[in-house]
Amino acid sequence: MTTVAILGATGYTAVELIKILLRHPHVKITAVTSRQDDATPIHAVHPSLYGRINLNCENLTPEQIAERAQVAFCALPHTASMEIIPKLLALGVKVVDLSADYRLRDPGVYETWYGHVHTDPTRLGSTIYGLPELWAEKIPGHDLIANPGCYTSTSILGLAPLLAGGYIEPENIIIDAKSGVSGAGRKPKLTIHYPECNESISAYSIGNHRHTPEIEQVLSDACGKQVSVIFTPHLVPMDRGILATMYARPAKEATEEQLLQAMRDYYQGKPFIRVVEHLPGTKDVAYTNFCDMTVRLTRGHVLVLAVTDNLIKGASGVAVQNFNLMQGYEESTGLLP
Amino acid sequence: MTTVAILGATGYTAVELIKILLRHPHVKITAVTSRQDDATPIHAVHPSLYGRINLNCENLTPEQIAERAQVAFCALPHTASMEIIPKLLALGVKVVDLSADYRLRDPGVYETWYGHVHTDPTRLGSTIYGLPELWAEKIPGHDLIANPGCYTSTSILGLAPLLAGGYIEPENIIIDAKSGVSGAGRKPKLTIHYPECNESISAYSIGNHRHTPEIEQVLSDACGKQVSVIFTPHLVPMDRGILATMYARPAKEATEEQLLQAMRDYYQGKPFIRVVEHLPGTKDVAYTNFCDMTVRLTRGHVLVLAVTDNLIKGASGVAVQNFNLMQGYEESTGLLP
Amino acid sequence: MTTVAILGATGYTAVELIKILLRHPHVKITAVTSRQDDATPIHAVHPSLYGRINLNCENLTPEQIAERAQVAFCALPHTASMEIIPKLLALGVKVVDLSADYRLRDPGVYETWYGHVHTDPTRLGSTIYGLPELWAEKIPGHDLIANPGCYTSTSILGLAPLLAGGYIEPENIIIDAKSGVSGAGRKPKLTIHYPECNESISAYSIGNHRHTPEIEQVLSDACGKQVSVIFTPHLVPMDRGILATMYARPAKEATEEQLLQAMRDYYQGKPFIRVVEHLPGTKDVAYTNFCDMTVRLTRGHVLVLAVTDNLIKGASGVAVQNFNLMQGYEESTGLLP
Amino acid sequence: MTTVAILGATGYTAVELIKILLRHPHVKITAVTSRQDDATPIHAVHPSLYGRINLNCENLTPEQIAERAQVAFCALPHTASMEIIPKLLALGVKVVDLSADYRLRDPGVYETWYGHVHTDPTRLGSTIYGLPELWAEKIPGHDLIANPGCYTSTSILGLAPLLAGGYIEPENIIIDAKSGVSGAGRKPKLTIHYPECNESISAYSIGNHRHTPEIEQVLSDACGKQVSVIFTPHLVPMDRGILATMYARPAKEATEEQLLQAMRDYYQGKPFIRVVEHLPGTKDVAYTNFCDMTVRLTRGHVLVLAVTDNLIKGASGVAVQNFNLMQGYEESTGLLP
Repeated sequence: MTTVAILGATGYTAVELIKILLRHPHVKITAVTSRQDDATPIHAVHPSLYGRINLNCENLTPEQIAERAQVAFCALPHTASMEIIPKLLALGVKVVDLSADYRLRDPGVYETWYGHVHTDPTRLGSTIYGLPELWAEKIPGHDLIANPGCYTSTSILGLAPLLAGGYIEPENIIIDAKSGVSGAGRKPKLTIHYPECNESISAYSIGNHRHTPEIEQVLSDACGKQVSVIFTPHLVPMDRGILATMYARPAKEATEEQLLQAMRDYYQGKPFIRVVEHLPGTKDVAYTNFCDMTVRLTRGHVLVLAVTDNLIKGASGVAVQNFNLMQGYEESTGLLP
Repeated sequence: MTTVAILGATGYTAVELIKILLRHPHVKITAVTSRQDDATPIHAVHPSLYGRINLNCENLTPEQIAERAQVAFCALPHTASMEIIPKLLALGVKVVDLSADYRLRDPGVYETWYGHVHTDPTRLGSTIYGLPELWAEKIPGHDLIANPGCYTSTSILGLAPLLAGGYIEPENIIIDAKSGVSGAGRKPKLTIHYPECNESISAYSIGNHRHTPEIEQVLSDACGKQVSVIFTPHLVPMDRGILATMYARPAKEATEEQLLQAMRDYYQGKPFIRVVEHLPGTKDVAYTNFCDMTVRLTRGHVLVLAVTDNLIKGASGVAVQNFNLMQGYEESTGLLP
Repeated sequence: MTTVAILGATGYTAVELIKILLRHPHVKITAVTSRQDDATPIHAVHPSLYGRINLNCENLTPEQIAERAQVAFCALPHTASMEIIPKLLALGVKVVDLSADYRLRDPGVYETWYGHVHTDPTRLGSTIYGLPELWAEKIPGHDLIANPGCYTSTSILGLAPLLAGGYIEPENIIIDAKSGVSGAGRKPKLTIHYPECNESISAYSIGNHRHTPEIEQVLSDACGKQVSVIFTPHLVPMDRGILATMYARPAKEATEEQLLQAMRDYYQGKPFIRVVEHLPGTKDVAYTNFCDMTVRLTRGHVLVLAVTDNLIKGASGVAVQNFNLMQGYEESTGLLP
Repeated sequence: MTTVAILGATGYTAVELIKILLRHPHVKITAVTSRQDDATPIHAVHPSLYGRINLNCENLTPEQIAERAQVAFCALPHTASMEIIPKLLALGVKVVDLSADYRLRDPGVYETWYGHVHTDPTRLGSTIYGLPELWAEKIPGHDLIANPGCYTSTSILGLAPLLAGGYIEPENIIIDAKSGVSGAGRKPKLTIHYPECNESISAYSIGNHRHTPEIEQVLSDACGKQVSVIFTPHLVPMDRGILATMYARPAKEATEEQLLQAMRDYYQGKPFIRVVEHLPGTKDVAYTNFCDMTVRLTRGHVLVLAVTDNLIKGASGVAVQNFNLMQGYEESTGLLP
């Protein structure tokens, strides 16, 4: 049994995390923290948790967290994460960090994209990027895992097999990504106010979305070549789900069936990847930890389509995969079916 | 030609008002005001207005408004309305007030339901409640019209014919009302944050919604008896529209067809009322100034169903009806089809 | 371990049933039947099942079903159910019937509301109505359980405690119910075609919805008095969920807190009922087997509000509760959290 | 005054057409035809038309149409259009054809993409493609205009200025297009059944969508070079709107501002094109005849974003533009604001 704290418990990734961990046979949630909602029962913040968990939101110090939990899931905003995480690690608490603070390897790149100096730069280079489908074997033994972004996972999972197999050119891959609104968080603002974004689709953050360097770093690692992407996120009027429609140039001759087989081979034995022949919709994977993907050849281009639930496979589900691997539990515990 | 100012131009009723008035052959919009968005082009607030109107939001004094406009549509929050309106009237500006400040006749009732002392109580008793389908003839000659609430109009329009005709008992009428999210305004807050209210329906403000006394006052006027209602609003995951499902006890023997005919007779010649035989959906009237209604007899109860677009017939459309009647234009100018 | 067949596997209740049963530690699904989709893999019908179940849809005889399964979940349309169920029972297969065929006690009432002569009338009177929160103890030992309707369960669960406790009058209870679109089934038709029902709410089947006699029969049983309801269903633009807003007259003096306590006491120890103080939204229970409910006193009326997921607690979740009780498994197996 | 018939009046483009034409000062609708709904009032098919038009659907011969109407809007399926149109033209009825039958110049290309031999091939080469923003001057004097497809217009309008100005390479332009569900028509089918497509986004018809050759033909005409596109349509859970996100390679050095200016210059004086600086959402143009567009330079690529309402600017609005130009009315009559 592992005792677990969830830091930043009022957001959407936190509530999904709690639901998954309540199903986990080896976990006991011992603390949920929040700076704003001190002493509020967590079920008053998230009514879907009513009767399922009996904890109040607390504003805890690292020491208090360490007294209660062996592992902390850190669902804090970036910069807040890198402030508390070194203290937790020093106190012997293992951490799965759902923020972006430890994803990028280079502090300069972090500063460029996030606009803050990284205050824990030495740990940056050595932190494992927690994408278990690519390198599950690296995760055990580490006490800090950087959990991937939602657009990031979806894009990387779709492209990695074809890049690693040399099937597509690594440069100028176009990622046209579409996300449900929950990806924008639980803090009310005009752009995601219901009457503004309902019945509308639009692009945003063209050329400057922070998942761009993360996608490039991880894909470059995955294929050993410098990968560059044009990443365009869109906001779709639905709660959950990401669809990445990706356009690449073939690097060698291959049929559609060969490309599908390359995907299947790459993810052999991976319980959450489903290589499908049909065109997947986000609803096929909603509320699950699956990533469905397929590939099409058309007019001299390779199209890769991948879908995930942005809050599960894109955040809290993969966080539990990482947790399981850190703690030596079976990777899919609490996550299947 | 009438010059018109729109006060509180950043909200959803304001943008609908602007769109209607841009189609109006006898109106020139000369000012749009806002306290927060001073000097912002109105099309930057509402991108749908791009290229259609060339005005900046301004923070104008009553005197400046009076210099530019003969009529002001006041789409300010309650209390802000009753602060500026006496000044505008004193300066000779006619006003259609879309707030609740002048709807109730009794300052004590206002204070009870709105929690503020009314600062213009003498005008309260004499202000005309602008529901043209009930008393269009009272509106000409007045320089202040209180524009009805959205739930209010929908409920009143459905019930008035049967109450006035003595077909239903005036007491304990149940109004189960359902509204799209735009009715909650343009200010972001958690309850109408997209991922909170999408894919969900819930009731709110049971027993204390401020449209309750307004419905009772106007229906009592309309039938000459004290009317009481149990009013329950619900939030529906859609942009626009109100459906009021209303349950009353019959006060005399009548067939469904007789009740329908009572509705048709009551609204004879009223261009925006459509008495229908089918069960109306809010989509039938979306983006129009129509109110569709029907009636059913079932198990000893009279059911009245009425639908409107909450921003048009429930706010800005009826405001233009009132404006037309005040100014001597044909009631439906700018509003049909 | 119990072997299970799902009859009528292409609909929405079937896919939910499959998902729940895949999580059930004591169930093996051995057959999924369909008349139209013979030999199609079930995951081709429901892509969300891809990789999770390896069965083809088959058009099986009762004998073939009996060879493979100890229990059949019958998700067939009404009349098709009562045709096959006597044969299955004769072959020793236990049945949870999700259709309406065995819910009503009186064959005449069935004929009136469903327009068909009941071909298995003798079994009608003796079949247990499977609402475990009301009479879980009656279910074990039976080999046929009539699974309740979705509107029915939601309405009954909300009203039963107050009727049983004599807090509300049993006559003329108004049930204004709102349902997501999945309740209308998976067969395409114009009324639930996306562009017709999206962004719209409307009432339907006023005075003649088939859940009416079912609600009255079960509530009358629950309180020992003749209950009558005015039941008005509405279609809401969302996938899942039912909200029943119910209006009753108090039968005796009681505070809101006493009414809430009566609910809590009635459902003491029932794992899927959550009596809450806030106004519940359907999203709070979406994708779960919970029924959240509360009560309000306003203007001399008792308002009961109850929410469920129409496909889970309203169909497949309660079916598994019934199955568990029939088979002697713990009632909540496969269903929590 | 022009008398007008609408052929195929039960679909979504027809109802939008009727609404626009009811606002048109020089049009009288004299016939609405349908093969299925003979003698049904058109408002029974489309309840939003209740009280606004008093015509029954009729199954009329070409001769009967010619007796009543000077112009026919043909909203029939492809192949049905080319069957009736030659007869109407022979009888002196002018036609705006909203189907695809006369859009492609080459009968062989038509046969390849539509799977039917074209039965009126000689007229194919000479029919004007009705995109008034590109060649309004060609339309007057013709008695048959091929109205563009919805994806087609949106894509072409966004790309034409930059192709015509030589700013982008004509080959391998990626068009990632997203459409609301009304674009799929009013005939119920599983893919656009509410619970299937709500809360989901997916791609469809990759590499074989029929708007592909149409986009290429018109853009090649517009810039005098062979244009090739990779066109990927997606279904978005909303009623209305198309967003085309388009990726091209620059053909010459230009700043973002120069590209925007090229767009503005190209559409100088065109009332329905709005070149904007922000990223447009489909809601900005919903229920209007506007096409909003902008351009971004990012990582060596030119991104063009264009939005329309698929039923108005993508179908019925542009049809009325074409009609106005054919008949010598001002192009925007009935369509602004």
